[in-house]
Amino acid sequence: MGRVVVEVMPKPEILDPQGKAVVGALPRLGFTQFSGVRQGKRFELEVDGEVTPEILEQARKAAEEVLSNPIIEDVVSVTASDASTAPAA
Amino acid sequence: MGRVVVEVMPKPEILDPQGKAVVGALPRLGFTQFSGVRQGKRFELEVDGEVTPEILEQARKAAEEVLSNPIIEDVVSVTASDASTAPAA
Repeated sequence: MGRVVVEVMPKPEILDPQGKAVVGALPRLGFTQFSGVRQGKRFELEVDGEVTPEILEQARKAAEEVLSNPIIEDVVSVTASDASTAPAA
Repeated sequence: MGRVVVEVMPKPEILDPQGKAVVGALPRLGFTQFSGVRQGKRFELEVDGEVTPEILEQARKAAEEVLSNPIIEDVVSVTASDASTAPAA
């Protein structure tokens, strides 16, 4: 089973209230190294077979037309990934 | 200026209503190749200097303690990235 990962971030010029909330909370919780935070979205699209170039092209189109709002967001990446993403921890 | 990218996804066993909504919408809009969608979060943490191993360790801790809810979410990755992420388009 294949997987396509799509990453979407708010455009740099757009105010990001979720990121602002996080950057305000981090120093109160002891994390003092971070001067800015922006929060976006990460989608995992499952496909039944392999991720062909056609499917990747469809995913790219879906990312632009469905998964992101092009007025306020940028599609940062659309990449094939193997299906067994292990947690970092 | 450095940047750390943190990716968080709902755990596989957790219901993901946003992903379910997307996977229902895609075929109606002509995207028929995708059998499942899950939606998570992507954070960009800015740091003033370089991303040192210590800062990456802080980011990893912040990812577990602040940026994710460990009951329902997995931290998928915490990686240093150069600050000029260009949009895919």
